[in-house]
Order: sequence, then structure tokens, then C-alpha cells
Amino acid sequence: MKKMVSVSNQNAGNFSEPIRSGSVCAIVLAAGEGKRMKSNKPKAMMEVLFKPMLGWVIDSVREAGIHDVCVVTGHLEEMIKEYLSKTYTGESVCSTVTQTERKGTGHAVMMAKGFLEAHKGGSVLILNGDAPFMDCRNISNSFFFHEAQSNCVTVISAMLDDPTGYGRILRAADGSLMSIVEHKEATMEQLAVKEVNSGAYWFSVDALLSVLDTDHIKQSSVTGEYYLPDAVKLLGDAANAFTADTASVVMGANDPVQLNELNQIARSAILNKMIADGVSLTCTDGVIIGPDVTIGSQTVILPGTILKGRVTIGSDCTIGPNTMIENSTIHDRVIINASQVKQSEIFEGTDIGPFSQIRPNCKIGPKVHIGDFVEVKNSVLDEGTKVAHLTYVGDSDVGKRVNFGCGCVTVNYDGQHKARCTVGDDCFIGCNTNLVAPVSIGAGAYTAAGSTITNDIPSDALGIARARQVVKDGWAAAKRSDKK
Amino acid sequence: MKKMVSVSNQNAGNFSEPIRSGSVCAIVLAAGEGKRMKSNKPKAMMEVLFKPMLGWVIDSVREAGIHDVCVVTGHLEEMIKEYLSKTYTGESVCSTVTQTERKGTGHAVMMAKGFLEAHKGGSVLILNGDAPFMDCRNISNSFFFHEAQSNCVTVISAMLDDPTGYGRILRAADGSLMSIVEHKEATMEQLAVKEVNSGAYWFSVDALLSVLDTDHIKQSSVTGEYYLPDAVKLLGDAANAFTADTASVVMGANDPVQLNELNQIARSAILNKMIADGVSLTCTDGVIIGPDVTIGSQTVILPGTILKGRVTIGSDCTIGPNTMIENSTIHDRVIINASQVKQSEIFEGTDIGPFSQIRPNCKIGPKVHIGDFVEVKNSVLDEGTKVAHLTYVGDSDVGKRVNFGCGCVTVNYDGQHKARCTVGDDCFIGCNTNLVAPVSIGAGAYTAAGSTITNDIPSDALGIARARQVVKDGWAAAKRSDKK
Amino acid sequence: MKKMVSVSNQNAGNFSEPIRSGSVCAIVLAAGEGKRMKSNKPKAMMEVLFKPMLGWVIDSVREAGIHDVCVVTGHLEEMIKEYLSKTYTGESVCSTVTQTERKGTGHAVMMAKGFLEAHKGGSVLILNGDAPFMDCRNISNSFFFHEAQSNCVTVISAMLDDPTGYGRILRAADGSLMSIVEHKEATMEQLAVKEVNSGAYWFSVDALLSVLDTDHIKQSSVTGEYYLPDAVKLLGDAANAFTADTASVVMGANDPVQLNELNQIARSAILNKMIADGVSLTCTDGVIIGPDVTIGSQTVILPGTILKGRVTIGSDCTIGPNTMIENSTIHDRVIINASQVKQSEIFEGTDIGPFSQIRPNCKIGPKVHIGDFVEVKNSVLDEGTKVAHLTYVGDSDVGKRVNFGCGCVTVNYDGQHKARCTVGDDCFIGCNTNLVAPVSIGAGAYTAAGSTITNDIPSDALGIARARQVVKDGWAAAKRSDKK
Repeated sequence: MKKMVSVSNQNAGNFSEPIRSGSVCAIVLAAGEGKRMKSNKPKAMMEVLFKPMLGWVIDSVREAGIHDVCVVTGHLEEMIKEYLSKTYTGESVCSTVTQTERKGTGHAVMMAKGFLEAHKGGSVLILNGDAPFMDCRNISNSFFFHEAQSNCVTVISAMLDDPTGYGRILRAADGSLMSIVEHKEATMEQLAVKEVNSGAYWFSVDALLSVLDTDHIKQSSVTGEYYLPDAVKLLGDAANAFTADTASVVMGANDPVQLNELNQIARSAILNKMIADGVSLTCTDGVIIGPDVTIGSQTVILPGTILKGRVTIGSDCTIGPNTMIENSTIHDRVIINASQVKQSEIFEGTDIGPFSQIRPNCKIGPKVHIGDFVEVKNSVLDEGTKVAHLTYVGDSDVGKRVNFGCGCVTVNYDGQHKARCTVGDDCFIGCNTNLVAPVSIGAGAYTAAGSTITNDIPSDALGIARARQVVKDGWAAAKRSDKK
Repeated sequence: MKKMVSVSNQNAGNFSEPIRSGSVCAIVLAAGEGKRMKSNKPKAMMEVLFKPMLGWVIDSVREAGIHDVCVVTGHLEEMIKEYLSKTYTGESVCSTVTQTERKGTGHAVMMAKGFLEAHKGGSVLILNGDAPFMDCRNISNSFFFHEAQSNCVTVISAMLDDPTGYGRILRAADGSLMSIVEHKEATMEQLAVKEVNSGAYWFSVDALLSVLDTDHIKQSSVTGEYYLPDAVKLLGDAANAFTADTASVVMGANDPVQLNELNQIARSAILNKMIADGVSLTCTDGVIIGPDVTIGSQTVILPGTILKGRVTIGSDCTIGPNTMIENSTIHDRVIINASQVKQSEIFEGTDIGPFSQIRPNCKIGPKVHIGDFVEVKNSVLDEGTKVAHLTYVGDSDVGKRVNFGCGCVTVNYDGQHKARCTVGDDCFIGCNTNLVAPVSIGAGAYTAAGSTITNDIPSDALGIARARQVVKDGWAAAKRSDKK
Repeated sequence: MKKMVSVSNQNAGNFSEPIRSGSVCAIVLAAGEGKRMKSNKPKAMMEVLFKPMLGWVIDSVREAGIHDVCVVTGHLEEMIKEYLSKTYTGESVCSTVTQTERKGTGHAVMMAKGFLEAHKGGSVLILNGDAPFMDCRNISNSFFFHEAQSNCVTVISAMLDDPTGYGRILRAADGSLMSIVEHKEATMEQLAVKEVNSGAYWFSVDALLSVLDTDHIKQSSVTGEYYLPDAVKLLGDAANAFTADTASVVMGANDPVQLNELNQIARSAILNKMIADGVSLTCTDGVIIGPDVTIGSQTVILPGTILKGRVTIGSDCTIGPNTMIENSTIHDRVIINASQVKQSEIFEGTDIGPFSQIRPNCKIGPKVHIGDFVEVKNSVLDEGTKVAHLTYVGDSDVGKRVNFGCGCVTVNYDGQHKARCTVGDDCFIGCNTNLVAPVSIGAGAYTAAGSTITNDIPSDALGIARARQVVKDGWAAAKRSDKK
């Protein structure tokens, strides 16, 4: 089955066209608890490649062209709300409604009645927040199918080699949808059907509203829940099923082992696509590339490299081994060797590492050299600057062609306040220099090795702050003889 | 077969009950050379997940409730004795006897005659020191079987899909043990038997002593060796076989390739159990978790993480990528990123890394922040202290809420002696400060950036030792013009 | 098929004997573009385990005993010429000829007519520069076959389970070669033949020259190319095929996915051989060992270790985890933990890491200790010297038993010039010392912690350059009260 998987955002370019109708919206069901997960998170917040499953679903919905999204929350909803408010801001904000009791998918959608009423006359996609591989291509293609057929409801289905456990799609002789039968209630003949319900549906909003109440959708006498497939039954005459072109749209996880499998599937799918696209991955061991990463051709990714969140990497780069990059932009011809980079931008021709760290809010390059044991934080290092070893540059604005010697420190904190350093173009900062912020080093200035610089240095001047060397002859020999 | 493997200590909680009888003891056979291993170690010292196979066996024996253990050593016995004396100390010490000549398993047990005589009236488990997956559950369950049947000898057997090479268990029609036949001497019909001898046996000590001499156990005319299975034959009327519930109890290794397979099997078994228990292992590449490691739920283990020896990790931690931890205790909510920790304790809410090293004998936390390029050795860092970058803290006692600037060094060695530094609560150690031990910094004191501190600083004082800054105008411009 | 692969240089010791005849030469075809590779390199420069395929081929040819090698270049030939001139120097230089138009293998060999004329009376091996697994054993064994049979041409063939796409070897009833038929032109019966043309041939130089022109080898009416197999046909009476003992000799890659497969195959073959030879590889994840690496027995290689180029590692070493070594020699009993080493020699009993970097042109050891966050470059560190932490030693000559404190810097660059430091035996360099080059520290001398040393220090003397410590009572308390 692994070969069938399409990992949603990676396929963004493949599908015919996004939905351009403004009258579409989506409801994402994310109230579930997932008890068997042994986790203190709501199930839709469980992560596949470091991204909550809910995020996979919302991003696919948005890429399919659906802007208005309502998330139904429940178990530990604060965690979901915090994630949504941090991730989907400004124009991309999602609304939420709360399902206080876990009373089934039908009940969950009833909670969003207000959202539906605001979208009367349109179409709504309802889907699970914990089926991360529902992709934008199948979402938009199913919408076009739904619209072309003028259906009241279109179930998105998939063909499974092993359909055990899933609701089966029963079709009439002419291929139209007859009904959905739950696995437990299926006859032997029905169990042989390999087409299953993905749990995602397109509804005409008006049609759905016409049956979305406890008069129409009845409480199950067994579980006490209200099931959304009952709405499909109620709208039966104008219902059909759209068969997704990949089985992965139905995949979810009920326990940590299945969640691990989703991770393996997504990881392999992305890596295989990268290899086919000309990214050089001699050995993919320990390489994890998230769904929101793009990499240019001929870039080499070495083992142990983790690319998390939104990462863009250019062409002809060498990244790794053992490099972690999070939410950053790396331009062409950059080398990052055994280092970590977060929330920063690295311009072309820059090389970093081994064993360095770029912390958030840096702009480095082009053609900057950062060697080993260097930390840069909240700073700009302009073109051609070199920071070769054992140095900390924090809260600083550094010009072009500056040379930091070994062991330099920008002293940006005095125990009470943080302040910035400014270093002009072509400066030479001597080894083991402290630049005590706030301080400004003029263009072309030098500092002497071992100096603690507390006052500004004008352009082209030397700043020096150190004691003169004294030699005590025989001192060491005497010390050694003390030892005995 | 891999799915059948149980890795001993990981299953400690699964078996019904340990043996509580005081009259049990065990003899572990560890005299073998293992010529095909291409190694300069005795075979039982070859490692599976960085732990000698002998250690796996002894720990399973002990967990099964058997306290008195005698190890029969031979080839390179000093290496085994050193391992035993370092690993099994105090109450858990093991005794040893030497088999100077390699003359078979029967002969090896004869060397332990004195040990057996000291345990008259009891039962003895005899097993191989190089079959690491014999687990405590099968040891104790076979003892209960042995005792319930009042056997003189109980062979522990296992069912193998491919029994080639192993001695076959021949049973009578009523299921009782008839005999053990070596592979080489078996008929075609006997070769079809899939139940094999694991090489581990429970004996009544008295019964074994009654046949444990060269009058009863005869020298093989072919190899000149004395075989322990002959003792089973001699005690045939009161012999039976206990079938272990996993084939892994018989597994051993005769060459590096087979040893590598044992490592793969053990590694996968442990990782799969961890995943099922709710440890988040998005990608297990390069992750090696030893048999004596416990990890709390919802802890994330990233690729390339090696956990060696006795390691305890709490819940909600993030460990890795590329982190190595040895014989340490990590409390809840700790983050260790691309760093190494040995023989230390890290308290809750502490974060370390990337690229730091905690060397033996540290107590760090709670809520300490250790950033990048920091080494801590033989020191205490109390609650809320921060050591953000490029700093060495060695042989030091550091209080709460201390802030070490970048590039600080505790100068704990003067070429002849080591000494300690003491830093009180709420101190602020300026960047590139040397604290020359022995020295004491009083609570709330400051040191100025770039100072070498050789004398104690009282509480709330400032210690400063640096030259005043001088600026030489035009110096740098002049220097550059020299160049031309 | 993976099990059949022999990776050429790794098998250097296995084959019967190299060719000792001086009258052999080889032509390597490397003009191809490989459009589907999505790369800006010529196809033969695509890398398998970080070594261009062309290098694999040339090294196998040379190991087989063939000295004179002519490479036919074309697409991006500057890149190939640069690689050849850097890699094959002095006596091992390769000659090149240019095929300006891509007109087939026959045409490519015509470009080397001058090279062939210089080798009249001898034998020439013609082979593809992008079939990296053609090994020296099959090259030399096919030559002996060619010579024993006095053939005009000997095709090297291989048996494939799936011969799809390859030219088939058609043999007469007596086993002699009848002809080679291209896949596209084969009958159903011929397609069933599993013996295929590897694209490598031994020719009598004189026989080849007699047909190597466009009068004999005709342009294909379909593609406009001249095919080398036509020369086989023209010399049919004295042609035969030598069947290689491994299918891997025919393997090549036409796109990034196939190139990735070649890497996996080569990587596994080398790792499996290392394990069988007694190298301890508990977990091979992220381990990449190149074809020109040798490792002594009982050396432990931990996950994430990359060994590139010509690397020799002794016995009883521990290398890794996450260590990268390039073109270096590591002697016995060396430990390298999570560090990187390039173009250097590490002598026995030395330990390095974690998190250190040895840059090119170092000689370190024996028994040197290099701890964490240390960079050494272009330096000698003699026996027993210790550089424990956070130190940079560059362009320096350091004697025996020297102790570098933490945070030391050899200041080897003043913004205009680089210079060297010399440190005599038994020196003690205090923490955070700057040694400003050029400077010489006499044997047994000390430097005081925090000193910037600009002048030479005589033997057994102390060099000190620092301000005296002052304590300002209550300063810190006052500063804190300012804050409020």
C-alpha cells in the first residue's frame, strides 16, 4: 500500500485545479480523544512528521481552494485552539465550535449549525481531523464531481486491499450509491466489497441543514451516538460516491503503533519523491523531511538531517549530516554541516559548521563563513563576513567582510538589560574580544586580542584593553619543585 | 522469527512471579573462546546492545529470583572476572570457578562441584553465558514446572521453524522426555522434530552430584569432551522438558554476522515495545536503546539517540537527535538536544544543548538551562541556573538562579592540583570570566566581563580584573597601508 | 540481486592475479550526458558513495594491472578533466580525447585512434565510465580468457534474472559467441536469453584498428550513431564472450532513482563485508563507508559515521557516533566521538571528542587527548598532549605532554598575515590564554590564565599579562536596586 500513498502538500502541483467557487466551506471534526494513544493530547493533535494531523487536513483543505474552515473541538480543546490561533492567523484564521459531549459525528456537525447557516446555498466538505493524508487533489476533484452531478451529498471513498473495519460503499447496478453499511452490520457478500467510506463528504449546505437535527438523525440505541452517515441515507436519492485515487485518504491511527506507521508512510513517500526529483540522498537514514519543505535540484542531503516546519532550501546546497533546520529559508549553494538553524534566512554561498547553531531571527550571508562552535542569535551578518570559531554573536548588526577572531563574545546582557552591538564593514575583531553592548565599532576598526571593549571605537582605529606581558624567569620550574 | 523474540529485562513485568525458594542457584558457562568471532574477548563477553551476553544472562537469572550464581570461566578469564567484579558488587557478587582446559559442558560443570555441594538439597539452573535472550519468565516458569513434577532434571526447550544444528528433544507418546539426540546423530525422522535443546537445564543438585564424575559422564571418543546432556540421559527416569514460549531462548552467535543479527533482533524488539508503550519514535534510525533502559510515556526520542547501560528517562522529555546518554537518570520534561550525558542526574524541566557534554558526577536542575558548547563535569548546578554558551563548569558547586555569561571557565587545575569553585545563589558571572579555583563567589555577586578572578568575592560585590580600554585613532588604517 | 554484488576495490584481495602483461591498455567511455539525471554533471561524474562512477571504473582497471588509460570525454569535459588531473597524478595520470558530438560508442572509440595506434600489438579493454561495479577480478579473468583463446574480441557478459533492455549474447551450440542482438531487435526466443552484454570488451588492438572507421562501422539509419558492437560482428570469427561471475558488472543508472539504488547496493555490500570481517557495527544506520576505506578488526563503528575518500582505520578503535572522516589515517586504539577529521593522521591511543574538528594537515598523537569543542588545524600535537575543551590550535607546533587549559586560542592571523606558534614539551597554557603568533613558548613554561602572550617565553618561565583583581563591595546590590 505504501506506494499508493500521496502525501498531501507534496502533491500540490499535481492536481488539475483548485476550487474557485466562493461558496464552499469545510467542517473538520477534531473533538476526539484517542484513548488508546497513551497521550495527553487530543487525537487530531497527534503529529505525523512533527505536524499535527489536524494541520495536514486544514492545509489540504486550504490548498484545494476552500477558505472558510470550522473546526469542531472537544477533548482538551484549549490545546487545539492554541495551535489554530498560532498557526492560522490573519486571513487564514479558522473558526471553532465546541462539542462538549462525545455523541458521534452527526452530533458534532450539529454543533456547527451556525457555521452552516452562514454558508447557505453553498457546499460544505466535512472531514476528519485525524486522517492526515486526505489530499487537495482528491478534495477538489471530488468537489467537481459533486457539482457536476448536482448531488445533495457525495461520499469520498477509496479502494482498500483489506477493507476490514471500514464502512462499505454499496452501489447500484448503474454505479450510483445505494448505501453505506458499517462493517459490523455487513453481510458476507457486503464484506467482500473493497470500496470503503473515507469519512469525508461533500454536502449541499441546504440539503444537510434540512436533515441536521435529532428528528432526522436518530440516536443509536446501542451507543447513544448520532451518526453522520445517517444524513447520507436521508438524502439517498441525490447521493453518490467519489472514489479517491489513493487508499491513503482513509488512513488514520488509533494507537501509537498505527501512528508510527503513518509517520513511516509519510516519511518514505516524501523521501522517494525527493530522490526522483533529483535531490541527492545517498543514504536516507535518520532523514526526516516534513510535508512543508521544498528542496532545489542537485542539493545533497546527508544522513541524520531533520527539516521541520516550513523550510525552503535552494539548489546545489549540501545539508547535513546531522543537521536540523526549522522554519527557515536557505538560498542556493549553501553548506550546513552538523549544525542547527531555526527561524532564520541564510543567503547564497554561505557555509556553516560543523557544530554551530543559528538561533531565531538571523539573516546571514551571502558568502558568510561560519565555522565550528559558533552561535548566532537575532543578528545580521552581511556579505563576506567570517566567524570561524568559538564565538557568540547575539543581538548584533554586523557589516560586510568583518573578521571575528576565535573566542569573541558579544556581551548582550548585563544581568538586567539586553542591548545591541554594531560592527561596521571591514572590521577585525581580535581573538577573545568582549564587545560589551551597547557598543559600536566603526568601519575598518580593529580590536586587540584579549580586550574587553566597553566604549565605541571610531572607524579605522584600534581598541585595546589589556595588561602588558611580564615574564617571571624560572617560575614554572620553581612551581614544579613545590609539588614534590 | 523476530516477532517471537522477547528481550529479557524488558519483559520483567510480564512474568507471573519470581522464584522465592531460597534453595535455588545457577551455574553460567562462560569458558568459551569463540574463535570465529575474530575478537580478542571471550565469547560470553561479546556485546549485544553494548552489554556483554554474560550480563544479559546473569541479569535474567537474578530477575527470575536466583541469587547464588557461579560463573565458569576459562579463555581470557581475567576479562570476565574484571567485568563481574565491576558490575556485580556487594550483595550481588557472583562466584567463579576456572575450567583450565576446554573439555566440554559436562567437564565445565564438574569444575563447579564445590559450588554444587554448598547447595545440596536445592535446585540448580545450568545455562550458557552466550545465549543472551534466555529470559526471567522462562527461567522461573521452567523452575515451577521442574518443581511441580519433582524432576531430577528439566531441559528448557524451544520450538524452531528451522532446527538445523540443534539437539532434538525426543518425547514419548505421553509427552515425557525420552532423550536428546544431537543433530549429527539424528535419523531422518528425528531431524524432522522442531523442538530443540536450549542448552539450559534445571537439575536437582543431589541428583546431578550423583552422576557428576568421569565414571558416569564418559569422555567422547571423537572429541575427547564430556557432555552435560549425558547427565540428562543418566537421570532419564525423572527427566522432562519445559518448552519455552519463545524461540529466542536458544539464540546464540558463532561469528560476527550472527552476533550482528542478535543485535538487530534485540534492538528491534526493544524499539517496538517502546513504540507500543507510547514513546514517540518518529524515526528509529540510529536509535539504540539498551536492555536496562526505561522511558516514560509521551517522551520523544529523535533519530541517532543511543541510550547505554542503566538509563532512566521520565515522561514528556525530548531526547535527541544524536544524543548519547550512559548510566544516568533523566527526570520529567527534560530536553536534551544533540548532546552527551554520562553518569549524571538531570532534574525536571532542564534543557541541554545542542552540542553540550555532561561528564560524570553532575546533578543539574531542576529548570536549568544549558545551551551550546558547554561542558559540565563533577558539579552541581542548582535550580534555575543558566549556562548558555561556550563555557566549562568543572569541579564546582553552583547555586540557584546563577547566570554564567559566554566563554566562562572554572580553572580547576593549575598543572599540579585540582580544586573546586563555589558560586552562590543569584550570581552573575560576566562573559569570558576565569574563576581560578579554589575560589568562592558570594551570593548575588557579579564578575566583570573579561576578568580573571583569583580571590574570593563577597556577597553582592563586584569582582573586576581588567585593563582600561585605550583607543588608537587611525591605527587600523595605518596597519592596512603597511600591507601594501 | 543485491547478494551478487561485488564492490570493486573491496574485493581487491580476492582475485587470482593482476594482469602483468605490459601490452594492455584501456579506453573508458565517459562522454555521456545523462539527461534524465537532473544534474549539471556529466553522467560518469555522478557519485556512488561520494566517488564519481568514473573513479570506480578507473581504479578497477588499474587494480587489474592496466596502467595506460584513455578517457573519452564530451559533455562538460572540463569537469572530468579537472577530476582526472586532481585524482590521477604523477605516474597514474590518465590521457583523454574529446568526442565533440554524441555519435555512439563506435564513434567514441574512433576518437581514441591515436591512443590505439600507440598500443599496436597489444590488447585494449573498452568499458563504460558509468558502470561502477565492473571489478578488477572480472577484468583480469576476462583478459586471461581473451588471451588463452587468442580472440580478436572478447565481450564481457553477465547473467541477469531480468535481462530486459540489455543486448543479448547469442551463442552457438559449441558455446562460442554467435552475435549480440539488441533488445529492441530480438525475437521472442532471443528475448528469453538471460546472458547480456556488459558493454565492456577486450579487443586485439590491431584487429580493432582494422575495422575502426566509418567504412566498416556504419552509421545507424535510425539514430545516426556508430555502434561498437558492430566491430564485434565484423571480427565475428575470432570473437567470444566471457561471463562475469556477478551481475553487478552491468549495472548503471539512467535517472536519480537508479543512481540511488546503486548507492544502496554498494553501501550494503561494503557494510556486510565489514561485519563479516569482524568490524563491530551494532547498528549500521547512517553509516556510509566508501570503497577506498580499510578498517582493522575489532574496531567499533557507531551509527551516523561517514568515511569518505581514502581512509585507513586501525584495530580496536571506536569511531562514532556521528563522526565524519575524510582522506585520513587513524592508527590503532583511537577513539573519535561525534567529531570530524579531514586530511590528517591520528596516532595510536589518541582520543577525540565529542564535538571537535581536526582540519587538514594535522599530525596528532600518540596518546593525545582532545576533548570537546576543540578545533585543530595545520598543526602537530605530540605524544601525551592534552587539549581538553573550547580551544583552537592552528598553525602550531606543539611538543609532548603539553596541557592546554580551557578557552585557549592560537592567534594565527592578524588580519593581514598568518604565522605559527611553537609550544615546547611540558608547557602548561593557562585557561583563556591568547598566544599571538609568531610566538614561541619554551619547554616547561607556564602562561597565567587570562593572559594575551605577544612575546616569547623562555623555558621554565611564567608569562603573565593581566590586571590585578579589584573588589567593589556592594556594587552588585546597588546595580540591582537601579533596576527597580
